[in-house]
Amino acid sequence: MSAPLGVAVVGAGFMGGVHAEVLAAHPRAQLVAVCDLDQRAAQELAGRFAVPTVTDDLDRVLADDRVGLVVVTTPNALHADQAARALRAGRHVLVEKPLALTPDEIHGLLRLATERGLVLAHGSNFVQSPKFRRVRELVADAEAFGTPHLARVVVRNAGPDSGWCLDPALAGGGVLLDLGCHAVEICRWLLGGAEVRAVTARSQRVRRPDGPVEDQAVLLLEFADGALGQCDISWACPGGEEITTEVLGTTGRAGADLWTGMGVDAFSERGFASVWEPNKGWVRPEWEWVRASGYVHQDHAVVEAVLDSVPLPHSPAEAWVSSRILAAAEESAATGRTVELTSTPNGLPLPDAVPGGDRVH
Amino acid sequence: MSAPLGVAVVGAGFMGGVHAEVLAAHPRAQLVAVCDLDQRAAQELAGRFAVPTVTDDLDRVLADDRVGLVVVTTPNALHADQAARALRAGRHVLVEKPLALTPDEIHGLLRLATERGLVLAHGSNFVQSPKFRRVRELVADAEAFGTPHLARVVVRNAGPDSGWCLDPALAGGGVLLDLGCHAVEICRWLLGGAEVRAVTARSQRVRRPDGPVEDQAVLLLEFADGALGQCDISWACPGGEEITTEVLGTTGRAGADLWTGMGVDAFSERGFASVWEPNKGWVRPEWEWVRASGYVHQDHAVVEAVLDSVPLPHSPAEAWVSSRILAAAEESAATGRTVELTSTPNGLPLPDAVPGGDRVH
Amino acid sequence: MSAPLGVAVVGAGFMGGVHAEVLAAHPRAQLVAVCDLDQRAAQELAGRFAVPTVTDDLDRVLADDRVGLVVVTTPNALHADQAARALRAGRHVLVEKPLALTPDEIHGLLRLATERGLVLAHGSNFVQSPKFRRVRELVADAEAFGTPHLARVVVRNAGPDSGWCLDPALAGGGVLLDLGCHAVEICRWLLGGAEVRAVTARSQRVRRPDGPVEDQAVLLLEFADGALGQCDISWACPGGEEITTEVLGTTGRAGADLWTGMGVDAFSERGFASVWEPNKGWVRPEWEWVRASGYVHQDHAVVEAVLDSVPLPHSPAEAWVSSRILAAAEESAATGRTVELTSTPNGLPLPDAVPGGDRVH
Amino acid sequence: MSAPLGVAVVGAGFMGGVHAEVLAAHPRAQLVAVCDLDQRAAQELAGRFAVPTVTDDLDRVLADDRVGLVVVTTPNALHADQAARALRAGRHVLVEKPLALTPDEIHGLLRLATERGLVLAHGSNFVQSPKFRRVRELVADAEAFGTPHLARVVVRNAGPDSGWCLDPALAGGGVLLDLGCHAVEICRWLLGGAEVRAVTARSQRVRRPDGPVEDQAVLLLEFADGALGQCDISWACPGGEEITTEVLGTTGRAGADLWTGMGVDAFSERGFASVWEPNKGWVRPEWEWVRASGYVHQDHAVVEAVLDSVPLPHSPAEAWVSSRILAAAEESAATGRTVELTSTPNGLPLPDAVPGGDRVH
Repeated sequence: MSAPLGVAVVGAGFMGGVHAEVLAAHPRAQLVAVCDLDQRAAQELAGRFAVPTVTDDLDRVLADDRVGLVVVTTPNALHADQAARALRAGRHVLVEKPLALTPDEIHGLLRLATERGLVLAHGSNFVQSPKFRRVRELVADAEAFGTPHLARVVVRNAGPDSGWCLDPALAGGGVLLDLGCHAVEICRWLLGGAEVRAVTARSQRVRRPDGPVEDQAVLLLEFADGALGQCDISWACPGGEEITTEVLGTTGRAGADLWTGMGVDAFSERGFASVWEPNKGWVRPEWEWVRASGYVHQDHAVVEAVLDSVPLPHSPAEAWVSSRILAAAEESAATGRTVELTSTPNGLPLPDAVPGGDRVH
Repeated sequence: MSAPLGVAVVGAGFMGGVHAEVLAAHPRAQLVAVCDLDQRAAQELAGRFAVPTVTDDLDRVLADDRVGLVVVTTPNALHADQAARALRAGRHVLVEKPLALTPDEIHGLLRLATERGLVLAHGSNFVQSPKFRRVRELVADAEAFGTPHLARVVVRNAGPDSGWCLDPALAGGGVLLDLGCHAVEICRWLLGGAEVRAVTARSQRVRRPDGPVEDQAVLLLEFADGALGQCDISWACPGGEEITTEVLGTTGRAGADLWTGMGVDAFSERGFASVWEPNKGWVRPEWEWVRASGYVHQDHAVVEAVLDSVPLPHSPAEAWVSSRILAAAEESAATGRTVELTSTPNGLPLPDAVPGGDRVH
Repeated sequence: MSAPLGVAVVGAGFMGGVHAEVLAAHPRAQLVAVCDLDQRAAQELAGRFAVPTVTDDLDRVLADDRVGLVVVTTPNALHADQAARALRAGRHVLVEKPLALTPDEIHGLLRLATERGLVLAHGSNFVQSPKFRRVRELVADAEAFGTPHLARVVVRNAGPDSGWCLDPALAGGGVLLDLGCHAVEICRWLLGGAEVRAVTARSQRVRRPDGPVEDQAVLLLEFADGALGQCDISWACPGGEEITTEVLGTTGRAGADLWTGMGVDAFSERGFASVWEPNKGWVRPEWEWVRASGYVHQDHAVVEAVLDSVPLPHSPAEAWVSSRILAAAEESAATGRTVELTSTPNGLPLPDAVPGGDRVH
Repeated sequence: MSAPLGVAVVGAGFMGGVHAEVLAAHPRAQLVAVCDLDQRAAQELAGRFAVPTVTDDLDRVLADDRVGLVVVTTPNALHADQAARALRAGRHVLVEKPLALTPDEIHGLLRLATERGLVLAHGSNFVQSPKFRRVRELVADAEAFGTPHLARVVVRNAGPDSGWCLDPALAGGGVLLDLGCHAVEICRWLLGGAEVRAVTARSQRVRRPDGPVEDQAVLLLEFADGALGQCDISWACPGGEEITTEVLGTTGRAGADLWTGMGVDAFSERGFASVWEPNKGWVRPEWEWVRASGYVHQDHAVVEAVLDSVPLPHSPAEAWVSSRILAAAEESAATGRTVELTSTPNGLPLPDAVPGGDRVH
């Protein structure tokens, strides 16, 4: 097994915390440094994940031999320069979205990474979300779905969390850049990556008519294969974040609501290969069913109980209680009578408090 | 870091495969043996996960020094004996549900594990499913939810997958045992683990009126604190598996549909502490949002791209394409005109095929 | 055409108002009297619907030759006596639910009505709701649904509207009587009217542990044909009224949420005769589609515009505006350009203000 | 009361049947003639509703003194001429959508109707559908909703029912005309009728790339007040007809799915005046609740039972059965025991068969 990958998080804000949380949990990654001009934020983040080095000096991070991967989560306007410095220093780089402000900046980063043989990754997380990957899988089932010809992606919230997002000098733009980069990549990916030939857009300033940037926009994408894409983005959406997709094909349709709603919703006259029965007509696709069923949490908890001597989240004594209840149920079903349970059965000492305990995660 | 935990999977059927898949992916676990009387099935499972030892002899598994944890997924009627043998051999044990056929069998296993200081875990996976844990968290928010007083759990499907489940000699019972053990544990757990004082049940034989066991049942549980629980279980449910929960509290309510529907649905007049805005009234609780957003898949893919030199699932060249589209969108929004994109921009060589590639997971 | 049916509303509370509203709109009914001890309430109700007679004396109502139908919406404890007096006076009677407090009281009314050849009707409105009738129709499609074997009916709210409902002397009971009469009739009706052979129930006092009556209950009904029925009723339900049904059959299932959710939700492997395509698998049954589509409102508005010279709710000038927009859309689709509309077309005077006007109903 | 309005239905196809059904049920309308070149269809329609006159000659209809209203449901290309002839003959006219093929044709009809003081109505039924009227009401609640700034209307199906719809010579166009006239009017109406200043559209030929007309289109409407409207229309939609709306406002949002889904879905931070509690946050608006509750069907059935001596759809003997069950439930709740019901209670003869009968509508 290779040595773990040393990671430096540059930018200790909200998204720095998210990436730190994810990478701290990866068995082959190791957080080695946090870098932010705001040293209080950097200290706080490092403390949460026991990161040894805290600094406000990116050069120091880039000179640190332990650092293999630099995660850039600073304000957008700094992305291109900081990512380029990291690549030139021979570091792999993951940049939170948007990768940079302009196509040319991004092209420069791509060239740098290619020339040096380094990994350059960008934060287009939603195309890797389990639900939307499930939608993509359904759309790609050509037998079931036919040819996709229309897609719509909605990414709306009530405005950005971080103050700098509203400062165009740091953010580099308004909602078109901030959420548009998500919506456009999701839309293209759902339609299979065909070339976009023409773009029509309209933007609005809903909440601040005199504000510096647009806070709502609709995009119409024309693809080379004749498909149409619609992207609706907004910082002016009441009622909580909405991230949804829908795709129409010649013989099927599919879509998902990331946070609410039906989950994944799909139809095929011919039947989806990857959906359990019933798999024709309107179907009910699950996703990540092993995890959704709790097997990952359960079995991992067993490993940790054994190796780390921590208690199980769900005691086997519960099975004994449930078993007594089921035995009573069988008796009740057979006799038609209600069966009462005595609370101290068999006089046997039990290894765990039964029932109860704090089983809330 | 401790040595990895060696795991033997006993029973190479469907659930043996699920646990093997989960434990093979745990960084601190290692599959060392597969045991099944059906050697073809054992070989197949071992092959999928590169497990070194295949046997049909449980004693050989229990004598293997590499084995720290035994996962029992054999027919129900064998659980008690096999788990007891493993415990007596000093092995930690995870038994797929039901832990055993009767309360006394289970009690015996609990005593054995306690006496020997071993971990005994059982397959009550749904109480560890992310969605239902979210429901439990909402119910446990007493400020928001008040006192829970009614819960309903539905576990229904179209009948068991494995042939032995319909053979009472191996299965140990009908749907009351097979799905009842899930429903009862979920119900008790959602209501906070209060003691059940009385049970009323009715069972039906819907699909085979003359069959050996019941295939549908309803249970009414009376808790010591006055709460009521309802469990509906069925092997005779058309339309696909249904696993749902709902809980009523004095000031709130919550529920979830594991596979379909609203996901998690909840209401509180006072507001849930753990829900994003809006968090009062009918709310839209997310769960595992970092994972649901794709950050786990994305960042882990970066680690693997660096350490294993495998391609990223989503190329950074996509960001360049999207950025060009957004620049066109800004121009279109500013001018009111449709902006056409040229397909070979800048004459620059690009590191990746753009657009396209097979981005389907 | 027969003479209109004269109607007296006895009880000028909330439900008196509902029945008055419905009967006032029936072309062959005519409200002739309102009777209530609370003369202010009676006057108010009579005023809303231009009812000529207001009284606090039921005998006067029963002596009035214009009265053919007496609608009883007084507190439950008065139903049996008032309905009997009306029947004895030769009047047809509609009694708001519950028809009376006990089986014997109801039996007495049935005998009276039968002996005199009078119509006796009771308020079991939900079995006549369009959504639940649609569910019943799906369940009764034996080819698609098979044999129904399990039904669940939920009727829950946050407690009764009228103060007297909480006074057992007037209400005659708690939630078992108040909402149980709905739930039980819906459940029996959904299962096709088979005989109930045994009843098991549990009740709770959730909101007022020391209150005079139960405010929550669950019922388990055992039918002679082996089917099971579940009724969940509550006055202690947070989040708004819930009235839902679900039925399982051997080859299909169906259910509905009266106020929210999927509307009517159904599945059949074989296909429902009454559902549009797709009619197999999980389907999306509409109900009252002619009305739901707006045809009833639209065409009736035309009749009234002609006969009563009132304006149409939706001016035909709107069609002209929409037509101009569609012509522009065709031009835009053909040319790829955005088409601007001039606001004063053709210099032609238009019969209506275009666009605008208050078109909100 | 005025004399009933005599109605002639011109065009005996599917929509002719719908309008005939609706108008036949109006107490003040009377179908007097059906006119169609296809005399078999005309006879069939006349037979269903007992219409006295059947003809293939529109002039004969227009010369018939009994005819006050002419309902035109012929192929689109005939609308302008037939409606104009009817108006010139002094008849009120309702024209199924589209009112005519071009803005100028429509303008001519508007002028004719205005000059003669006749009612001219057109089939824009969805703006009068109960669900969408409820959405409009929520949007118009300025205190709750703020200013609407974005609307989307989707009208999609799998293609027209009538053969002539695919013949451009009779239909006058493709999906832009056929469904676009619905979508555009709904969109404008939901946004309060503001003026549309610019239109951008794209169309596709999904199912027949070489067909004569487009079968899918998206429209982007720019309103004078800055709002944006999106209309998605399709004849190439798998999975059944989709008719949905959504509107965003500065402090609320609302939408509806006409056939499936949540029904009406809405959010307001401030609270909707017309929604029952809870009326803040995400709410669950009902619509036409008196009808949805079954009161209209129930009370009308009583009137008909009295006046026409037809049986009630739901016998009062059902109340007696339910009352017996509730009495048993009370006993069971009090004693904890299951209570069995005897099937022939009291030895009393009952007026109706109990239980059973065909209660399916």
